[in-house]
Parts: sequence; structure tokens; C-alpha cells
Amino acid sequence: MENEIEKLVREEIKRIAPYVPGKPIDELKRVYNLEKIIKLASNENPCGCSPRVKEVLKENIDNINRYPDGSGYYLKKALSEFLKVKEDEIIIGSGSSEVISLTIESFVKPGEEVIYPFPSFIIYRILVLKVGGIPIEIPLENDFSYNLDKFLEKITPKTKVIILCNPNNPTGTIVYKEQLKKFLEKIPDNIIVISDEAYFEYVETSDFGTCFPYYKDKNIVITRSFSKIYGLASLRIGYGIGRSEILNYMERIRPPFNTTELAQIAAITALKDQDFVKHSIEVNKEGKRFLYENFEKLGIEYTPTEANFILCKFKQDATGIIKELERKGIIIRGMKSFNLSNQYVRITIGTEQENKLLIEELSKLHLVGVSGRLRIVK
Amino acid sequence: MENEIEKLVREEIKRIAPYVPGKPIDELKRVYNLEKIIKLASNENPCGCSPRVKEVLKENIDNINRYPDGSGYYLKKALSEFLKVKEDEIIIGSGSSEVISLTIESFVKPGEEVIYPFPSFIIYRILVLKVGGIPIEIPLENDFSYNLDKFLEKITPKTKVIILCNPNNPTGTIVYKEQLKKFLEKIPDNIIVISDEAYFEYVETSDFGTCFPYYKDKNIVITRSFSKIYGLASLRIGYGIGRSEILNYMERIRPPFNTTELAQIAAITALKDQDFVKHSIEVNKEGKRFLYENFEKLGIEYTPTEANFILCKFKQDATGIIKELERKGIIIRGMKSFNLSNQYVRITIGTEQENKLLIEELSKLHLVGVSGRLRIVK
Repeated sequence: MENEIEKLVREEIKRIAPYVPGKPIDELKRVYNLEKIIKLASNENPCGCSPRVKEVLKENIDNINRYPDGSGYYLKKALSEFLKVKEDEIIIGSGSSEVISLTIESFVKPGEEVIYPFPSFIIYRILVLKVGGIPIEIPLENDFSYNLDKFLEKITPKTKVIILCNPNNPTGTIVYKEQLKKFLEKIPDNIIVISDEAYFEYVETSDFGTCFPYYKDKNIVITRSFSKIYGLASLRIGYGIGRSEILNYMERIRPPFNTTELAQIAAITALKDQDFVKHSIEVNKEGKRFLYENFEKLGIEYTPTEANFILCKFKQDATGIIKELERKGIIIRGMKSFNLSNQYVRITIGTEQENKLLIEELSKLHLVGVSGRLRIVK
Repeated sequence: MENEIEKLVREEIKRIAPYVPGKPIDELKRVYNLEKIIKLASNENPCGCSPRVKEVLKENIDNINRYPDGSGYYLKKALSEFLKVKEDEIIIGSGSSEVISLTIESFVKPGEEVIYPFPSFIIYRILVLKVGGIPIEIPLENDFSYNLDKFLEKITPKTKVIILCNPNNPTGTIVYKEQLKKFLEKIPDNIIVISDEAYFEYVETSDFGTCFPYYKDKNIVITRSFSKIYGLASLRIGYGIGRSEILNYMERIRPPFNTTELAQIAAITALKDQDFVKHSIEVNKEGKRFLYENFEKLGIEYTPTEANFILCKFKQDATGIIKELERKGIIIRGMKSFNLSNQYVRITIGTEQENKLLIEELSKLHLVGVSGRLRIVK
């Protein structure tokens, strides 16, 4: 009967890799008999979220039997004031990834091409395949920097969407202001640019190229998240910015209750606590310097980052290192799922204490010999 | 530039009705200067949710900076034990409507037909149009009962999915056991049956035809919800049951973090409190009898229901009545959005007190004259 189902399913779905169910972190705790887990794997905010958010959530669990406000009325109002954009220039998503999904579902016809960087956020490929689009992956330069000319070269009459992941996950590299300006000037009107800016709050460089100044004049959807700096990953909430002519089409297929009431309330409250945001940026900055310094001492190659994670390259297969850290309760992310070699790992910048423990365990785990080869010491 | 966008958007999206942003209930409060709102419009559980759920939510808001468990590991485990089905025969959705969406997105190719009842849940049409499918709406009988022969008659080589909404929203009518058995025997293997059972816990009739006994042998996806009897509408969580061969394809396109951590925890806790479920069923039963009796006194036609809502037919356009009730803080649902005539309204069965207030206001609002004509008395 299995073959029977294979005959029924859409071709597009068959092209997507089969689902492998994961296990939650609590299972890891149980397996290794660990008391505490340090999770540096998913680019979450190690500072938690604004304490005000927790208060407001506690105050608002009495009405969970009621459907959420499907229009996100108050959250749109709050974002509109915060960003100085019109309410109908905002769309609310179950994480910014849903906004990316709605954009692709609204505009990409079967056989049309979507250009995006490699390596980058793995969801892009799935979303493009799902609608029968053709993924065009543009390798970043050797140092993982963006060369947007290579994106422009790949534009064909079939190109419908170009995604910039900025800062890029998992490399932490960015598109710069001047670079973006020149790029957008050359983008024809029949192409939609998605600017995935989930990590933009962490950027230190002053000439970062956000698409924000251009969204009124170009076909641009900017996507942003409450999962990262605002620390609301568990609640699934993000938003998109774009001209209402674009967003109106996306609203037609947005699931009517795509975000929970608690997520909307939390997001409104989180926006108001910019002190927490500032604090999180500081912690990230300090953690970044500390990790850079110690990676250098340990001879671990890394890509300088503008986000809250660092892409590292070990001198050998990192699978053993990842496994050893896991036993100690430290989780980092191997990059095989991003189609990078097994030498690469992505490490989320943690709190001061978490970063110290990571470096301690990494130091115990490996010694860099004269040859530069790294050995695991058990 | 608007015309420009219209040229870029997928044809399927253009066929979907434009989005009209709504206003939350709090806005109604503000406009009419009301203290309390009685919402009988969205088939929510008027008893709230299990008190244990509220406790467990309060205890679990400390980790909202962490991504939810994308696999729904513990919730699948809990459902597996509760339903006596295997864990890989369960899929978790952001409400059961997402499970319906994933089924349609996985199996319906452009130009293929999806058969479902009319009137029924309005989301079906949008989901079918979105993937380029062809909606085939089968009118229910005059008393809104199901005649499944009419569904079978409409099967063509292009038919891919048949949706049964059972109990049906907004009519509260059901498919019976014998009826379902005969129907399923005639369904060929190249068709997937979606059995939307969001309200099945409310059914009083013993010969209700759930698809549950058949899902192992047929191409069936049963969808169920925590939004109704479990009172978790605000948290967006539901599930599907089907053979793993079917669900595995749907898992490929399920958004990796489609439900929040709080929703998963709430659902696990809610499942354990079956006393709350029993209580909710009792309240619904009593409310149903009370409303039947009073609708009859008031000369309001209604369709006997197996769910937690009643479809009523007024002798005239109900728009004025809906508006008048709204001013008093009572919200019921006009059925124009379901493409029924403006005489129809759908009323969710409330608590004893809410039902009494509704009947009080309805009695004040209208008098049924000798002619049976209903007048609004201001």
C-alpha cells in the first residue's frame, strides 16, 4: 500500500527530503543523566526574554479557550508605531519563516526560479521545492562574504524571487549598504526580493545594508523575528514589512489564526522593553570577543560574525567533538544539515558563564599539535 | 505599481477572496462602552479550559526563549497512549486546520478535484484554491443532513480528496456509522478521505460515524482539535491520525516549529483531565436543551445539532438582530460568510448564564406575530 501512496503524492513533495523526527533536549538529559544543558545550537537568546513578558503572560492565561485575534490588530499597531510604517505594510507570521513561506507561495509559479545564497537557512530550499519552484543556490565567496554580482548574473526570465539572508545564517556575514544599493538598482520590477533580517539587531557594523529604506519603492518583503533578540522562540512570532499591494496577496493565504494570543501579547510587551534588547546586544558583543580570543588560542578557525552565532571550522571531522560536548551537556550544531563539510560547526554565543564552560570543555577535548591536527583526548 | 504586482502573483492566489482585516473583541468593548462580552460566535468552550492547564502554563513560561520541540515528541507519546495508535500515525498541527492544509498541499495537484459539503467550514475552499485544485461543493439535503450518495456521484478520475466535516460546521449534522461504512467501501484507493472531526467529542448520538475504525485500511486522515472541547483555541493546537505512509509525506512540508511549546504542554495536560471534558459535555447538553426549548418558544427555526453550536434560521434578515445583540455585548455569527442567506445565524452554546442572557435579549428584541413575522423592537 506504501507504493500506492507514492503514486498519489504531488511530485514536488517527493523532491523534499524525508522527515526525520528529532528528540527533545529533555531526552538528552535523561540519556546522559545530565542535570543541566547548555544549548548553543539554535541561536536563541541566552538571556531569556524580557521579565515583563513573563509577567504579562501570567496575567493572560485566563482566556486561552478563546481564539486569538486573527488580524493581529494590536501587534500591528505596536509595530507600526515602533517602525514608523503603516499597519497595512506589516504582516504577522508564525515566526518570520512563515512570512518567507507566504511570499514564496504567493508569487513563485511552478518552474520559476528562486535565487538564494549557499550556505544559508535550510528552509528556503524546502519552501521553493514545495511550490514547484527551482532553487538556484549561489555559493558565497571563500570567506563566506556576499558577492551580489554573482546573484545578478544568475537572473533569467524565470527568476521570480531573490532571498538575501542578512546577516546570513550560518555564516554571520552581511550585505553592506553600498553593495545593497547597487544590487537593488539592477533588480527588475518582475522580481521580489526577500530580505531575511532575523538577526539584524545584533549587527555591529555601521554600514549594514538593511532593505528597510527601499521597501516602499521596490518589490521587497523584509522579514524579522521575535525569536532571536526578543527571546520569544518558543512562542513562534515574527513579521514582514512590505508594500500593502504585496502583503494583501499574502494575507489571502495566511492561515486565519496563525499566531497565538500569548505570542501576540508577548511580542507587544517585548517591543516596549528596549533595555532588554540593549542588554542582550551587550552580552552578545562581549561573548563574541571572548569566543574569538579563545578560538584563536585553541587554533579553531572562525568566520567573524554580525549575528549571535559563530561558524567554526575544525581541522578535522567535528562529529566526535560535537558528540563529546553533548555528553557534557553542551549542544552545538554540526553543519552537515546545511550541506557543509563535517569540519564545520555553528556555535550560538551564550552567556558569559556558558561561553566559559564551552571553552573549558573544548580545551579539555582537544590539543592542537605542531602539525595543527586536532585530537580528541578521552 | 499595483498592477505590476497583480502580474507577478500566482493565478491561484487571485482566485481567493481578498483579505478583510478584522477587529478584536476588545475594540467592540471600547466602541459600545461594554463591560462584558458574551462571545457565542466561534464555537469555543464556554467553560474555559482545565484548571490544571493554567497551572502548568504558569510553571512553564521560563523557557520561552528556547525553540519548541519541533517533533512534538511528548505530545505524540501522550496522544499515542490516549488513542491507542502508534506515534508515527499522529501528526501535530497548528490547529486541526493546519493538518487539513498539509493533506491538501501534499496530495492535490493543480486541476484535481476536492469534494466537500456545502455549507461547511469555509477554510476548505481557500486551501483547495491555493494549490490550484478544483473545489466541488456538494449541497447537503434540505434539513442539512448528509447524503453521501451525492458525494459518490461526483467522483471523477480527477477526484483526489473528499472532505467530510463530521459533525459539520455550521449545521451540527453528522455522518452516521452505517452510512460511513457503505461510503468508504465505495471509495477507490486513489482518493484520500479527510475526516474533520473537530467537534466529535460533543456528539450524543451513539451511531456516529467516526473514521477512526478505518484509518489503518483506507487512505484516511482524521483531524481533531484541542480548540473545542479542550478549550485551547488561543494556543493553536490540533492533530491528525493516519497511516504513517501518508503522514510521512505531510511531515516533509510541515513547518519545523508549527506549534508552540506552551501549546504542546497544555495539550498533554488537557488530555489528562478527562473530568473537565465530561463536565464540558454536560454543560453543552444542558445548554442545548435549554436553547432548543426557548428557540421553539420564540419561533426560531433551528437544526438539531451534535456539536457545541446551533444553526438557527430567522424568519427575516438576521443582520439587524446580530447588530442589536452586539450592542448588548452578545456576539453570534451571521452565516453570510458561509454563503448562506442572511436569515441564518450560528450560535455557540454557552454557559447556563450566557444562554439565559442570550434568550432574554432575543426575547426583548423580537416578537413573533400571528403571521410569524419577526420584528425588531427598539
